[in-house]
Amino acid sequence: MTSSSYGYFDDANKEYVVTTPFTPLPWINYLGNNGFFGLISNTSGGYSFYRDAKFRRITRYRYNNVPMDSGGRYFYINDGGTVWNPGGRPVRTELDHYECRHGMGYSKFIGRKNAVEVEQTTFIPLEDTCEIHRVKVTNQGDSAKTLKLFSSLEWCLWNAEDDGANFQRNFSTGEVEVVDSTIYHKTEYRERRNHYSFFSVNAPLAGFDTDRQHFVGVYNDYSCPKAVMDSACTNSEAHGWSPVAAHQLDVELAPGESKTFVFVMGYVEVDADNKWQAPGIINKAPAADMQAKYDTEAKATAALKTLTDYWDNLLSRFTVKSGDDRLNRALNIWNQYQNMVTFNMSRSASYFESGIGRGMGFRDSNQDTIGFAHMVPSAVRERIVDLAATQQSDGSAYHQYQPLTKKGNADVGGNFNDDPMWLVLAVANYVKESGDTDFLHFVVPFEDTPEVPSTIYHHLKASFYHVVNNLGPHQLPLIGRADWNDCLNLNCFSTEPNESYQTTQRGDSKVAESLMIAGQFVLYGNEFVEIAKLLGMDVDASEAQPHIDAMVASVKQHGWDGEWFLRAYDSQSKPIGSQQNDEGKIFIESQGFCTMAGIGFDDGKAEQALDSVEKHLACEYGVMLQQPAYSDYNPLYGEITSYPPGYKENAGIFCHNNPWIVVAEAMLGRADKALSYYTRITPSFIEHLTERHKTEPYVYSQMISGQDAYIQGEAKNSWLTGTAAWNYYAATQYILGIRPEYNGLRIEPCLDKSLGDVQIVRHFRDAVYHITINQGDGTGKGIASMTIDGKPVAGDLVEYADYAGEHQIEVVLN
Amino acid sequence: MTSSSYGYFDDANKEYVVTTPFTPLPWINYLGNNGFFGLISNTSGGYSFYRDAKFRRITRYRYNNVPMDSGGRYFYINDGGTVWNPGGRPVRTELDHYECRHGMGYSKFIGRKNAVEVEQTTFIPLEDTCEIHRVKVTNQGDSAKTLKLFSSLEWCLWNAEDDGANFQRNFSTGEVEVVDSTIYHKTEYRERRNHYSFFSVNAPLAGFDTDRQHFVGVYNDYSCPKAVMDSACTNSEAHGWSPVAAHQLDVELAPGESKTFVFVMGYVEVDADNKWQAPGIINKAPAADMQAKYDTEAKATAALKTLTDYWDNLLSRFTVKSGDDRLNRALNIWNQYQNMVTFNMSRSASYFESGIGRGMGFRDSNQDTIGFAHMVPSAVRERIVDLAATQQSDGSAYHQYQPLTKKGNADVGGNFNDDPMWLVLAVANYVKESGDTDFLHFVVPFEDTPEVPSTIYHHLKASFYHVVNNLGPHQLPLIGRADWNDCLNLNCFSTEPNESYQTTQRGDSKVAESLMIAGQFVLYGNEFVEIAKLLGMDVDASEAQPHIDAMVASVKQHGWDGEWFLRAYDSQSKPIGSQQNDEGKIFIESQGFCTMAGIGFDDGKAEQALDSVEKHLACEYGVMLQQPAYSDYNPLYGEITSYPPGYKENAGIFCHNNPWIVVAEAMLGRADKALSYYTRITPSFIEHLTERHKTEPYVYSQMISGQDAYIQGEAKNSWLTGTAAWNYYAATQYILGIRPEYNGLRIEPCLDKSLGDVQIVRHFRDAVYHITINQGDGTGKGIASMTIDGKPVAGDLVEYADYAGEHQIEVVLN
Repeated sequence: MTSSSYGYFDDANKEYVVTTPFTPLPWINYLGNNGFFGLISNTSGGYSFYRDAKFRRITRYRYNNVPMDSGGRYFYINDGGTVWNPGGRPVRTELDHYECRHGMGYSKFIGRKNAVEVEQTTFIPLEDTCEIHRVKVTNQGDSAKTLKLFSSLEWCLWNAEDDGANFQRNFSTGEVEVVDSTIYHKTEYRERRNHYSFFSVNAPLAGFDTDRQHFVGVYNDYSCPKAVMDSACTNSEAHGWSPVAAHQLDVELAPGESKTFVFVMGYVEVDADNKWQAPGIINKAPAADMQAKYDTEAKATAALKTLTDYWDNLLSRFTVKSGDDRLNRALNIWNQYQNMVTFNMSRSASYFESGIGRGMGFRDSNQDTIGFAHMVPSAVRERIVDLAATQQSDGSAYHQYQPLTKKGNADVGGNFNDDPMWLVLAVANYVKESGDTDFLHFVVPFEDTPEVPSTIYHHLKASFYHVVNNLGPHQLPLIGRADWNDCLNLNCFSTEPNESYQTTQRGDSKVAESLMIAGQFVLYGNEFVEIAKLLGMDVDASEAQPHIDAMVASVKQHGWDGEWFLRAYDSQSKPIGSQQNDEGKIFIESQGFCTMAGIGFDDGKAEQALDSVEKHLACEYGVMLQQPAYSDYNPLYGEITSYPPGYKENAGIFCHNNPWIVVAEAMLGRADKALSYYTRITPSFIEHLTERHKTEPYVYSQMISGQDAYIQGEAKNSWLTGTAAWNYYAATQYILGIRPEYNGLRIEPCLDKSLGDVQIVRHFRDAVYHITINQGDGTGKGIASMTIDGKPVAGDLVEYADYAGEHQIEVVLN
Repeated sequence: MTSSSYGYFDDANKEYVVTTPFTPLPWINYLGNNGFFGLISNTSGGYSFYRDAKFRRITRYRYNNVPMDSGGRYFYINDGGTVWNPGGRPVRTELDHYECRHGMGYSKFIGRKNAVEVEQTTFIPLEDTCEIHRVKVTNQGDSAKTLKLFSSLEWCLWNAEDDGANFQRNFSTGEVEVVDSTIYHKTEYRERRNHYSFFSVNAPLAGFDTDRQHFVGVYNDYSCPKAVMDSACTNSEAHGWSPVAAHQLDVELAPGESKTFVFVMGYVEVDADNKWQAPGIINKAPAADMQAKYDTEAKATAALKTLTDYWDNLLSRFTVKSGDDRLNRALNIWNQYQNMVTFNMSRSASYFESGIGRGMGFRDSNQDTIGFAHMVPSAVRERIVDLAATQQSDGSAYHQYQPLTKKGNADVGGNFNDDPMWLVLAVANYVKESGDTDFLHFVVPFEDTPEVPSTIYHHLKASFYHVVNNLGPHQLPLIGRADWNDCLNLNCFSTEPNESYQTTQRGDSKVAESLMIAGQFVLYGNEFVEIAKLLGMDVDASEAQPHIDAMVASVKQHGWDGEWFLRAYDSQSKPIGSQQNDEGKIFIESQGFCTMAGIGFDDGKAEQALDSVEKHLACEYGVMLQQPAYSDYNPLYGEITSYPPGYKENAGIFCHNNPWIVVAEAMLGRADKALSYYTRITPSFIEHLTERHKTEPYVYSQMISGQDAYIQGEAKNSWLTGTAAWNYYAATQYILGIRPEYNGLRIEPCLDKSLGDVQIVRHFRDAVYHITINQGDGTGKGIASMTIDGKPVAGDLVEYADYAGEHQIEVVLN
């Protein structure tokens, strides 16, 4: 079952099993999905936060440290002087056995040394703001053992940015309390905070530490904390400096005996009028309530069962059984899991995103919904409402918003001109999935006209006309500060270091135009027209259509370079992504969006554009963003040219846009090419590249270095990428072709023969469809015949009105 | 000579000698004084930057790491498998001998193990933007040795804040070049930067590394870098991730033989039109020029000599020989040294100030000049001009300005109502020291009226009237957002965490008043009147005087609480620092400033106020800021109440204000009390408290925990504190009583008998005075007789007009 020297997929348990602590990079998992979150690596490194990774960081983590991934929730065993961690680090003692099982919302670490086994299972229960560590210690030997078990974590002083910078204040503020087996972290609770955290265990303590220097020692580190090496905590009371939480348990085990301890690291908020139970003593009632829910092994295990049941149920809404296990693994487990994580986190907190930077992106968050709407449609609905509420009545949008306040980020502002149309995609996809057409009439005022009862439909219309009202010299959409490619900055002209390319703009933006937005406008403009018709807004529909038709004409007239679509016109109205350019002759985004929009299907341009993508942009590791790479910085183009060739937007494989080509190829009916592009970046298909890739072999990364890079095929920025939603969307809606529409489920596969026949279970609204797709003899594209419950049905649409409930659907392809 | 278990003063060499790598906290030194700076700890940890610690960070450092002080310029020896550092860390190998000598602008590390000695001398030459490491390796044994010598440092990607946060970009941008024995760091040089750095050595390499993972290993750290442990660098070429610079030298040494290598870590800027010597190859000419200046041991040693000569000369401008070596050591060496560092750094970069936070404070920087004007008056003049240029024509001032741009910091703004009057102190002190009265006519326009040719004198007048025009209900100065105590926030009323107390303001600020500003206004208002008279602006002088007199009256009428001066009136016009308060009954600031202003000398209030300070605020470790400590947060008072009792402004010993009491006591003629307060916080007098203090025993710290703290007498925030300038000012101008005035040097000592007779050499403008102070039989206060060159002179003023050149002055005290 081992697929690489680092680990393997255990599909039955929905786990990835890491078999060494020494992965090329830390390989992480996410815990929590309801406000309280944790990032946890394969050695139990990482940190936790409540809602906002910047403003409510609970435990401390240091990014890009030496060694990597220093800091986490560590458990230590001192077995007669032999010190080790079940997670294999940070102590350097080599274990007799190590494994880390990253599962759905939990991670399990099994370490074994000198006939002692420790199984640490860490998860965040569905309903509470706490992280549970169920730690089972087993004496597998023939003689009795007396072990010391230590826990350890370091508190962040809440504001993660301030915590790492403002030492002249923060070294004086730390405060804790210790009562029985619970360590309370109450820094700043005395002033403006009505919340604290705690770390408890359901057993009496042999000792504790709350001051880092006492526990770790001044010049020791977490690989050799002084108290652990000395076999004794010091019962230190932190006042300022760096508060930590460490428990010491003395554990006696007969041969074969196991003992299980439940550690709970919780976060609680307290009624502002009831903060204190005595002067200076925090009100511990809410903590006690939470602790009582998990104070036995049985309770903790039951909470874990509830969590895994939740995930089993969630993932069962769309399952696939094809002839290729790699496809099944991706679609049934890991891609969906990543979709939820990305939906929850946006781009805020990963091992590459430090959690102190950005709010939720308008563009990102809209796109993240398309991989998640079938899982938890109510959450998608709420997200869309939040996003729409930051939109302006002219259709423009704040580029980001803050998840805690749900307000637009004024520091970044707007004028990223692709933003508005992504709302159309998100709404259309959500309504098609859920059938919730009433949502189109749901009132969400624009940010600048709070008194006007605008509906979601009005937002879509405003998005549409924002493009119409912002056209440039070629009647193509003005790009603003940037479109989807944040790094193609055509109105920045920056020569100052320390200046943001993306929020700087010099002069107006009335010249530079984007072909990517042009394609996007045609594609989602057509969605808008369809929605208008659905609602009976026929005048709106008929007024909108000519704008779309005109855009198609503009693209054909001014946007075709001869063999592919241009990318843009710059601030001088010179083409970008053209044979005329020395570098950056062809870009992926406009090929993807113009073809997905159906432009050039009538005259061969679409096919020619995709053939050019294959010829110029495709490589073993995926499809590069553009070619040739820019060798020098060009202030007229901005950040894209700031990267060394082959990395990021400068001719890297920026995975997010690869699925656009997959969709387009499927639309053209080229099943082999669609699958080929899909699999080049899909983790389960490229396990053999793990050594080169370095990032987690179970999730997508934002970027893989391209053919111009020094090291080709090296991935970066795993987990939080629009790639997850988009590649899932491409695979399910275009390769498998199971595509929700307003009135039912379209079944229009474009299946490469290598996938064999496919069985699918698809929950769709309140229906459950058991779908069998049989390969035909021909192209894999289009349906030769379809039966529902054994009865032949014309066409490829399963009308929801006719087929609620559970049905068997059998399809044979052409 | 050993004074503690951690080290001792070596006065002859102007060094503090640290005798263990394992100090309670890292003990650091500063290198550089002309734009290029380095912080270096007693184990060679730390980092370097050019001008601005945030925007031009050269090497990478991680604050508050585990273990402490991880990261620096480390040299490693691998001696047949035994690996160690001359600085004693980060490798954990115990040395046979270790010492670190922190000197004036250099630090020297001597490590010895198995008959190999390495002496690493690190300094920044006076004239260049580079850090030099002279590394001498000696075989003290009887047999030949073949050693591996490795260097190591980690590059920061220039913007220190971005470097630690924006990994999704920064892991893709790193670029280096290696030519011969020089490693060039050129990240972002390809785009908007016209500068790069390098690390070179004057010997051929056996190998090198530029990629951290190759040098350190993924899961190793700087205590066991993989390449060092393996005895071989990998010649790695960094592309993205984390670029480092590590050299490997193979060193063969006969018995008794020494070899010396010169490593140079430099920063160079390149003409924007001449950045490249070939496509993608940086122009190395400026680096080559710099390297050539230090490419032999002799050249490096000569540069070090130039540096130590510079310091010897600088410190010779004011030397003291009293009967107490501790006083001599403080005033002749360390206090002056710290004054320069504080003047250069303001509060930007120390081991407590992360270098990414604040600009230069208007208030701080003005005060920092008073300990430095006798050393480099031209630098003080330039600083005052920079500060004045950010002032508004109504006298108000930006609270901070950015050293790179020299512009006021609009994010922080102004309305800290003590700010303007500090300019009077700085200017008066500078002119008195230098005799540069023309400076008062020097044109520096106000920031808001750039077309008006306002002079420095106009700035002083604007400062004066800013107070006059901003009086409150008791005709006392309105406090604004805060006065000197940034944490007494009387118009903030904050209940939101993550909100700055100091930049938040709710409502107007027309009620809350400050007695500290009242005293400051009287004190520096009198200076203004004196300056007006000096310039013949008699109308100005006579118009100003009544405002001062009125303020004295207001203080006596509304500012006296019965036994001491009130601290303030809050936003409700209720007193702060009064018997009426339950907590915070008495504060130090208003006692210091009202008495220094001479208020209450006529009616006993000054003496009573200082007696109250002694009774209520003084403790073994210094004078606390207020008493009793605030036990709860009070939104009406703000940040001061946010700290746990005994720390920082909440009843900590905030050392900066202690010298105010010293000055006031000296003015009262109470020599014993003046000296007692001075010595409680002066490092050389409290070496025996080092274990408790934890911070460097050779410099002042900002804060020492007070009697309410859990651990009393624990110091924090060493180095960058106004304490340095102020305590030096108090000791030299009030205890020794050597006080510059416009027309000469006043000699008015207030000398405790324990100091014995005192010899002083004082350079004053172009004169050199050899002053002998003989203790009289009485109070130590006031002069019984004075002779100059043997001739009796009336009074205590040495008129500069009469005594240019070199003179012998003998004084006998009452």
